[in-house]
Amino acid sequence: MEKPATNDFPIHELLGKRWSPRAFSKQPVAPEILCSLFEAARWSFSCFNDQPWAFLVATKENPEEFARMTGVLMEGNAAWAAHAPVLAVSLARLNFQHNGQPNRHALHDVGAATALLAVEATARGLVIHPMGGFYADKVRESFSVPPGWEPVAAIAIGYAGEPESLPEKLAKREREPRTRKPISEFVMSGTWGNTSPLISGAKKA
Amino acid sequence: MEKPATNDFPIHELLGKRWSPRAFSKQPVAPEILCSLFEAARWSFSCFNDQPWAFLVATKENPEEFARMTGVLMEGNAAWAAHAPVLAVSLARLNFQHNGQPNRHALHDVGAATALLAVEATARGLVIHPMGGFYADKVRESFSVPPGWEPVAAIAIGYAGEPESLPEKLAKREREPRTRKPISEFVMSGTWGNTSPLISGAKKA
Repeated sequence: MEKPATNDFPIHELLGKRWSPRAFSKQPVAPEILCSLFEAARWSFSCFNDQPWAFLVATKENPEEFARMTGVLMEGNAAWAAHAPVLAVSLARLNFQHNGQPNRHALHDVGAATALLAVEATARGLVIHPMGGFYADKVRESFSVPPGWEPVAAIAIGYAGEPESLPEKLAKREREPRTRKPISEFVMSGTWGNTSPLISGAKKA
Repeated sequence: MEKPATNDFPIHELLGKRWSPRAFSKQPVAPEILCSLFEAARWSFSCFNDQPWAFLVATKENPEEFARMTGVLMEGNAAWAAHAPVLAVSLARLNFQHNGQPNRHALHDVGAATALLAVEATARGLVIHPMGGFYADKVRESFSVPPGWEPVAAIAIGYAGEPESLPEKLAKREREPRTRKPISEFVMSGTWGNTSPLISGAKKA
């Protein structure tokens, strides 16, 4: 199943194709491919090039580690995400490495790295689904996360499956169109709330 | 000038090419292209699909607005970024729209949207340079940002220029190779600090 963006202005194919399904196929992901996904995250931008990201990762091939990972998910997410062949948690280092001061960009930079991971996944025919619904405290405990690192998001990784594999309520959601507010609602110029005249000056797709 | 990633594992061309220069050409950016950049951000993922992002944007075609924007940059950044044809500031809505509760993923999701904007820029031959070095309070004041929105990053947008256009110290930095810690330092399995065996199981590029 694919669910392309209904974009108003042209965007690169990989960005229009990227989406976050809940239905995953059972097909495992080769280690080489997972390494390319994390390599894509590696080359992201970060404040002072601090690279404040880390990822804990578990694959279904290792049932014990995979169970530890599904154990940190909130129940609503575990219901579908436990069927993905790979689960990960992203973490942010909250203080800069060069001076120990708080890094207000740590979460931002982890999000950026995760988005580039998502683009690499899309380019390889994979899908990822980042989730806020997990227990950060359980991550800390289950993986002995040291102080100064914050669990940020859980991420299901794999190949898209069929919506029919989901419980009916989720299958219905899976088939609904993707929705986003238009850029006219969030691109402003001059003063807050003033839609940028760049948008009326541009031709729509 | 290009500065491709020296990646250990293969990544998509757009992700290897993306980088954050300081030298910008004077070439303006067409409104259509800027709209496509923000459209790419629009289709990013976010917790509860809250889309907690906004962008304030100014182009050199409007000197008054552009000056307001350069006025929020820290001096070190203003020295080079004021030569970019377009400047923006990303902002995050700190509370969910559906229930008003704090959104711990707001900054993360703005970072993700900005990374997709960067990919779209790369695909169109543009470059962006996100900056932490700006005055959030000046953004609030200059653009009448309402409570609940947090200025996150300043972003220079345009076409790459020649390093020779920069002061010598910055020109030297511009020519230095890009550096990142290897994925073996931040991809872990089982417990914190344990490099994932996925990496030794994969063939390097």
